[in-house]
Formats: sequence, C-alpha cells, structure tokens
Amino acid sequence: MTYQAPISEMRFVLDAIAELPEISRLPGYEEATADLVAAILEEAGKLAGDVIAPLNHAGDRAGSVFENGVVRTPEGFQEAYKQFVAGGWNALPFDPAFGGQGLPWSLATAVQEMWQAANLSFGLCPLLTVGAVELLQAHGSEQQKSDYLAKLISGEWTGTMNLTEPQAGSDVGALKTRAERDGDHYLITGQKIFITYGEHDLADNIVHMVLARLPDAPEGTKGISLFLVPKYLVNEDGSFGQHNDLRCVSLEHKLGIKASPTAVMSYGDSGGAVGYLVGAENQGMACMFTMMNNARLAVGVQGLALAECAYQQARAYAFERVQSRALDGGDEPARIIRHPDVRRMLATMKARTQAARALAYWAAAALDRAKAEPDESKRAAAQARLDLLIPIVKAWCTDVACEVASLGVQVHGGMGFIEETGAAQHYRDARILPIYEGTNGIQALDLFIRKLLRDQGTAMNTLIRDLRVGLPPVGGPAKLAALRPPLAVAIEALERATAWLLDEGGKSIVAGAAGATPYLALCGSVLGGWLLARSAVEAGRQEDGTFAAAKLRTARFYTENLLGETAGLAGAVIRGAESTLAFTDDDF
Amino acid sequence: MTYQAPISEMRFVLDAIAELPEISRLPGYEEATADLVAAILEEAGKLAGDVIAPLNHAGDRAGSVFENGVVRTPEGFQEAYKQFVAGGWNALPFDPAFGGQGLPWSLATAVQEMWQAANLSFGLCPLLTVGAVELLQAHGSEQQKSDYLAKLISGEWTGTMNLTEPQAGSDVGALKTRAERDGDHYLITGQKIFITYGEHDLADNIVHMVLARLPDAPEGTKGISLFLVPKYLVNEDGSFGQHNDLRCVSLEHKLGIKASPTAVMSYGDSGGAVGYLVGAENQGMACMFTMMNNARLAVGVQGLALAECAYQQARAYAFERVQSRALDGGDEPARIIRHPDVRRMLATMKARTQAARALAYWAAAALDRAKAEPDESKRAAAQARLDLLIPIVKAWCTDVACEVASLGVQVHGGMGFIEETGAAQHYRDARILPIYEGTNGIQALDLFIRKLLRDQGTAMNTLIRDLRVGLPPVGGPAKLAALRPPLAVAIEALERATAWLLDEGGKSIVAGAAGATPYLALCGSVLGGWLLARSAVEAGRQEDGTFAAAKLRTARFYTENLLGETAGLAGAVIRGAESTLAFTDDDF
Repeated sequence: MTYQAPISEMRFVLDAIAELPEISRLPGYEEATADLVAAILEEAGKLAGDVIAPLNHAGDRAGSVFENGVVRTPEGFQEAYKQFVAGGWNALPFDPAFGGQGLPWSLATAVQEMWQAANLSFGLCPLLTVGAVELLQAHGSEQQKSDYLAKLISGEWTGTMNLTEPQAGSDVGALKTRAERDGDHYLITGQKIFITYGEHDLADNIVHMVLARLPDAPEGTKGISLFLVPKYLVNEDGSFGQHNDLRCVSLEHKLGIKASPTAVMSYGDSGGAVGYLVGAENQGMACMFTMMNNARLAVGVQGLALAECAYQQARAYAFERVQSRALDGGDEPARIIRHPDVRRMLATMKARTQAARALAYWAAAALDRAKAEPDESKRAAAQARLDLLIPIVKAWCTDVACEVASLGVQVHGGMGFIEETGAAQHYRDARILPIYEGTNGIQALDLFIRKLLRDQGTAMNTLIRDLRVGLPPVGGPAKLAALRPPLAVAIEALERATAWLLDEGGKSIVAGAAGATPYLALCGSVLGGWLLARSAVEAGRQEDGTFAAAKLRTARFYTENLLGETAGLAGAVIRGAESTLAFTDDDF
Repeated sequence: MTYQAPISEMRFVLDAIAELPEISRLPGYEEATADLVAAILEEAGKLAGDVIAPLNHAGDRAGSVFENGVVRTPEGFQEAYKQFVAGGWNALPFDPAFGGQGLPWSLATAVQEMWQAANLSFGLCPLLTVGAVELLQAHGSEQQKSDYLAKLISGEWTGTMNLTEPQAGSDVGALKTRAERDGDHYLITGQKIFITYGEHDLADNIVHMVLARLPDAPEGTKGISLFLVPKYLVNEDGSFGQHNDLRCVSLEHKLGIKASPTAVMSYGDSGGAVGYLVGAENQGMACMFTMMNNARLAVGVQGLALAECAYQQARAYAFERVQSRALDGGDEPARIIRHPDVRRMLATMKARTQAARALAYWAAAALDRAKAEPDESKRAAAQARLDLLIPIVKAWCTDVACEVASLGVQVHGGMGFIEETGAAQHYRDARILPIYEGTNGIQALDLFIRKLLRDQGTAMNTLIRDLRVGLPPVGGPAKLAALRPPLAVAIEALERATAWLLDEGGKSIVAGAAGATPYLALCGSVLGGWLLARSAVEAGRQEDGTFAAAKLRTARFYTENLLGETAGLAGAVIRGAESTLAFTDDDF
C-alpha cells in the first residue's frame, strides 16, 4: 500500500488552525509565502510517497543488521537518504547562517509528518539530527557551530541523543557515564542503551550528543554535562581524523520500527572517547530542556503520522474488500465500507487523526510565535501556551496512534494479523511512541507538576477561557451551533478536573500524580473536539461547501461518539486518586 | 518470567460468582466435589506453570516451521502435549461414555484459563479439539463417535475447524469448497485458509471439521454441509489407512501466536479428500451454531488468560525495577511500583482482568445450568442468559486483553519494546483475539440483532433487573454501599441505551448496527463493575478480612476509575449512530 500525503488537508490545518499566513508575516518568516508553502508540500509529498514510503514494509522485514561492527540499514535507505539530503529537506526550519532555510516550524511540522507517515523508521534519523542541531544552535561554541552545524543542518552528518543507560531511563539523573577533562576536550567512558541510529550507513559521520558526569559533579540531574562526541574526529581543514573511541556493541531486537537501528553504544573502551563540552559543565540537563519541546512535538507528530498512515491503509482495504451483504439490502456481497461498524471504525480513525493533526500544528504555531513574535508579551504568551500543550501533544497524539493502528488491524479482519498486509506493522511501530522521549506517564506528570502546579493554573485557565471564546457561535449555522453544547460540557469537565488538581493535587503531589494520566487524556480529548469544531467553523468560511460539510460531519462524529469519554476521564481524575492509592502492595 | 496460576482467586470466582458448589449438586456434576476441584486446580496449575509456560517465549521466537510439507512445532511442544494428554486434561468436561470426565464447564473454564495464560499458542490446539468434540457429540453418527470421539476427547488426536476461505471470512456463506457424494462418503475439493493447527506434529491424526458445499446445494449459508475429514483414514480395526487427499500448503507469517501453525489447507488435489457428513446435508451452519457458544466463551477466556499473564509479568517488573525517587519522599530511587502512575496502570490491569474472569466464569456457569438444570424453565432461563452473555464475553474480554497487554508494555518502559522482555509478545499475541472466532464487530451485531432485537429485549431486561437486585445492599457496610450509586448510574445508562436500540435500532437495523460496538462495550463495562462489586460482597461474607478488603479496593478502583466510561459509551449508542451514518464515502 502506498502513502499519499494529504496535502490539501495539511494546507487547510496550516492555514486555518496554525494561522500560517499570519506567522509568515512575523520577522524572519517572510519567505513562507503561500506559493512557497504549496511548492514545499507538493515536493515533500512526492519524495515521501514515491521514494520513502515504498521502503517501509520491506525495511520492516529486513531490519537494520549488525555484523562485524557494522550496521547496515535496509536496502534503499541509503539512496532515499541521499535524495532527502540533496533536496535540502533537513534544513527547512534552521538558521540560514548555517545553511538552513529559516522557515516556520509549523510548516516544517507538516513536512515532518510526511516523512514519519511514509516510514517511521526512516524518519527517526532526521528527527534525531534535528535534536542535535537544536542543541548546537542554542548552546554550541562558535567553533562547534562552524565545525558541525552546517553538516548537521544539511543532513550530510546525522546526530544522536545519548541519554539512557540501563539504570537510567526515565531517571536521567542516575546516569553513570564519566567524562574527564583532558586539555581542550574531555574523555568519555561508559555505556549507553536505546541509541536510535547510534550507528548506521546513511551518513559519513555521526555526531553523538552524550550526557555524562564529571568526576567532581554533584549527584543527580545537577551534575550532568553535555558533550559532543563525533564518530570520526574532524581536523581543522574539515577532513576526517581518527575514528573516535566509541563503538556500537549490538542492536536491540525490537517489537517495531525494526528498520531503524537501536544501538547499545560503548564509549572509551580504549581509554576514552574524545568529547567536546556543549554549554557549561553540569548544565547538561538545562541544555536538554531547550530541545525538549521540539523533540516531544516531533514524537507527537510521529503519532499523528502513524495514525494517518494506518488510516490510509485501512481505508483502502475497506473500499476494496468485499464481504457479506449490506444490512440495508442488496443481494450481492458488499465492499466492507458499506457495513456500519466498519464505517464507525474508519470514522473514529479519521476523526482522531484529524484532531491530532490540528493539535500538533497548533502547538507548532505556538512555537513559531514564541520564537518570532516581535512583542515580548506575545512571545511569552505563546511560550506559555506551547509549554502547556507539549506534553499533551506528545502523549495524546501517540496514544491516538496506538488506538488508530489497532483499529486499522481490526478493519482488516484476519488479514490484519498477517504480516504481509502491513497493518500489523503499524500496530507494532506505533507502540514505541508512548514510551520514548519521556513515557506518556512522564508527560502526564510534566503537565500536572510543571505546567499546572508551577504557575497555579494560569496557563491552563487561559487556555480554558480561549476554548470557551472559540466555540462555534450560538447564532451561527444550526449544525455548527449544535457542536457547542457537548463541547461546553466537556470544557466544564476539564475546568472541574483542573480545579481539583490545583487544589487537592496541590496539597498532595501523590494524589495529583495518580490522576495525571486521565487528566492528560481529558485535555487531549477536549482539545481534539474543540479543534475539529474550529476546523468546521473555519472551513465554513471557505468557498468549498463540500469541504466544509465534510469538516462539519467529522466534528460532529467526534463530539457525539468520542467526546463523551471526557465525563469518565474527569471523574477518574477527581474521584479516582483515592482508590488508586488505596491499593496496598499486597493487593497487586 | 513464569506464569503462576492464581488458584485461590480462581477458586473464589468459581465458588462466589459461578456458584460451583450449587452446580456440583446438579445431576451429572456430582463428582465436582470441593476436594476434587481443589486437586484439579492444583495439578493443572503445576502443568501450566512448570511445563507449558516455560515454552511460551522460546516458542514465539522459533515459531512453527513448515518444511517439505511437514510442520514442526517449537521445541518442547511435543513433550508438553504428551503430558497434557497423559494427564487427561483434554477430557475434563466431556461425556464419560467416551472417556470424558463429565465435569462442569465452569471448572473446565478455569482450567482452560491456565493453559491459555501459560501459552496461548499451545492452548489453541486443545481449544480447537474441543470444538471438534462438541460437533461430534452433538451431531456425529454412532459410527463417527465410535471411530473418532474417544481419541479426540483424550487428545490423542486433535481437531480443527475449516471455515474460512479467501473470499469467505466473516461471510461464511460465501465459501466455495465442494463436496461430491461418492458412495458412503463424500469427496472434498477446495482451499481453506487460517486453519489453526491445520497441520502439526503433536498428534498421530488430525480430524478436520470442514464446511463445504454440495453441487445441488442452495446458495449462501443454507447450502453448507459439515464434513469430518481425517488426515489419515481410519480402518475398521482402528488402524490407519491411507493419507487422505489433503495437505498443508503453507503457514502464515503472523503478528503473534507464532508458535501455533496457521495453515493454508488444500483438499482434493488428487481427486478429492474423503469426508464423512456430520449431521444432515445443508445443515452445516446449524451444526456450527451448537458449538459456537463454547468456542466464543473459550476465546473470551483466552482474553482473560492473556490479560492475567501480561499482568503478572508487569507486576513482577514493577516490583523489581528501580527508577526515580518516589514522589512522597526518600532519597533513594524507588521500585517503580511506588510511583502513582505505575500503580494506576497495574490497578487498571488487575481490575479489568478480575472483571473479565468473573464475567467468563459467570457465563460458564450459565452453560452448566443450561445443560444440567433438571427444571426445564431454569434450563431455558440459563440458556437465554448464556446466549446473551456470549458475545459480550468474547468481545469484551478480548478487548480487555489488548488493553491490558498494552499497559503491560507501558509499565516496562523502554524494555517493553524489546522482544527479549516478553511484554511485547503479549501485546502481539493479544491482537488476534478480537479478530478470530467472529470479529468483535460481528459479536456486537450478534448481540444487537440476535440477542436483543429477536426477543425484543426480554433477556437483556431480565439481566438489567438482576443487576439492580444484585447491587450491594443500601444498609450494608458503608464502603460496600458506596459502590451502589456509580453502579446504579451505569446500569441506568445501559437501560437507556438498550431502550434506544430496541426502539430506533428496531426501526433501522443500520442505525442499530452503527451503535452496536459501543453498546457491547457498555454491557461489558457495566457487567465488569457489577461483578467486582458482587465479588466484594461475597468476599465480605468470608472469614478472611484481608481478602475481602482487597476485593473491595479492586471494586472501588473499578467503579471510580473505569466505570465512568459508560456515560460516553451510552451516549455513543444513542447519539452516535446518526453522525456515523452521515459520513459519505467521499468523507473518508
């Protein structure tokens, strides 16, 4: 099955929800004209659909392979990556001073969606490089920038994030990798696990961003420093020096995203890998925070992308597969799209996916505004909105991915369980998304503690106020106005749960933490429904009546079939904590 | 990780919910004394935990292999199956006249849970044999019974179900396999797919139950006949005659249950496989219906079993894995079971699993009463209850399996995505359960059309009345009584949705079908919560106060954290159909 980027849909969400036309009037983003946006989406769609997507299923079957210290990516990945770099796709949102194109993140997010939908395993490589670029842009020395940034922005070299160690997963502060000062650089020793694209054959050099601890560092997260550790050292003239003292020890045997190599990396087997300090000593975690919003947004986009891809596959099957007569008559077996339960599944997949897209692009727009609004208070407001949305985007869109991929299997019936069909791959691939880049449980804690408690609910209550203001108008078209009551009820549930978390969760961090996951799901569900309603309102202003009617039907399906979950979720936040915490260890 | 059968829990549910002590007073079940039940659970638990479970993960990695026409099951399966047969486990619920032990289905269901939890792929083999036994017991000729029944009941030979063909999945009536009369037997020609254990090396003979069509048969399901087609023909003296004209063409490459061979079977490549008619010509579907309740109950039990197994694995990991300090203090990193979000996940897994167990055993008890109650009206009432519960057991317990297995992966964090850990296998294995033995969408239609509309809601309204009567008493202990209000609200939601389906769904079968899946989920959720409350009430009558308190905490967790979903589900039934059906083909 082939993936086709839903370009007109993306364009609609960019314009109507992310307000890209306004963003393109902000200083620095002037190049993002309507024509350029159209051309970029068009060209990216071709590369994603024609080149990268066809490698997805074969890549899953072959996997990345580790032999004699060398990692080989699946057939076709090298050539596709070459095209990706040659097209300048990696450079889209980055600093023009280092070869970037300086385009808005909202646009880059739509383009990211295409790579990830086409091939999650492939898309992970540039996703990690983006993280390395961000770190260097924000914290690298001039020398580091001139040595590494342009190559990473172009994608000629790729980047990795080295955080996790066997005893240090969610608890990054527990890491033990050591860094010792050695003249103008440091020597790094230790083992890292779960390093995505830690070793591969797509690029000439791999730039590892490694968290490690100095001998005299304080304990925990306050004693972590960030180092740039290239696979090949780089001479002053830009040529490669020796192979650094680092190696891939093995690749993990994973449930999904099998084409992407997940490496165990060993640093300093022969005395220490040369590393260059990025930012100040012991400020590694602070550095990481500067890229966290982007990285979590990117994983949320992976969720949306995976959902889109699973949806397209299930839709194609439902329109093709003939089975059983339709309930409303006809003597011949019907395409299964005629069956109401299949329609319900596909409508659920579509509504969730569109809601996730609106949410992700909306957050990306806040990122653009937080960077580029000339007015400081507007920048701060956008940053506050972004910080609030990020954990919701990451967790909710990735939970959506799992739900949609599972429905995609179900639409296929028995064929969904057969690997050749491809639906099962989406189900497997999706399952990493709620785990990496901070588990969804961590996102929920982040939402509760850092985003809600810390500002005493200011950002969330501002959001709730904006949600109310942005409801379809009472006096508007009847069908649009009909979306109001269920949304108002859901927003009220969100308000109640928020008040409870601020109050009771403020008193007991443990009680709040017990309700954090349903609270995040509640936020996602309300925002999803509200954004689809907004989409229907915005579409109603356009000339294309057919498009507007479809948007309205999707919003209505969501509010009447899915939004009802908010009642139970709010209840789980408010009433659930006590019974959750009442469980004794022996009860398990 | 090792599976340990939760024997005391099983025993409690058998006694308190399935009322096994009462069932054992019914004619024919007198042998099921308390002592025998205890001994059986004990011994089955040993075989499941010590012999069958250790093969589960290695079996997944090796898979069943097809080479040169021969299927090899993974290492250890043969020996384990031998022990299974030698122990007489296959014979538990069957007719003593043919070597069965004549024990209640409720007890057999608990024992089934053990095999399936230990190793879903292994457990599938006897599960299919049970189906063949049921068919022969009910519809086989005396000759067929004497030739095949004892060997199938003992498990020396195994059985298969051959329904599906490429164009005939959910729509069995579309099958094309042909049967031509040829003296005292028939010649079968055609291809069947998705045949579980269609070929393997565990038994000397395989008895295929094959649906096929006579040349002069009416179209559709009314023209289907059932045939017994043995792999090896059996001579009058019981010795094997020639290899029948049937063969395994290939095995499917599946997402999960990889140790179980799923065969493409070809019949009659050399002129026709010898088949013996079971029941009358063109009555094949009617025959299949007699075993459908049992088979669907069995798959529901697989769901419950998989959930139990995934829960045990996640629980073990949560008590062992150390990561991050606890939110309520302590300087040292804590076992992750200390973290509220992990507790919430595990409590969800436990509550859902226990609810699924109660539901499955409760249905099995109805099966026993439908067979053995001396009073005809009691038999009829039990049969009506069973018929109503079966689609709910099948679909809800298998959806629970997927949810619980996914949570199990999440509890493991990054390790959950690594195949070596085993959590990922459960996630893959679980995904077949909502598909086979009638997709969960088919179950929802069965519930709506056959179980609700056909008797105009009589059975469902009787159930709703019984649910109300069985609520924890108002005047009882305060904590038990506190379960009443949320359950009463949920039951009311079920009543409203039922009334809507009878009314609107009665007018438009399509509208009802659009709401059938949320309706089934609503039934499952309400029954789950109610059965946990019943468990708490029953446990409160026992001497063990600790056990009773734990049951109460589980029920409370369910009613306060999970039962709230019923509001949204009822809303989706009542308000969702219209918007689901409003989607045009172009909207997708």
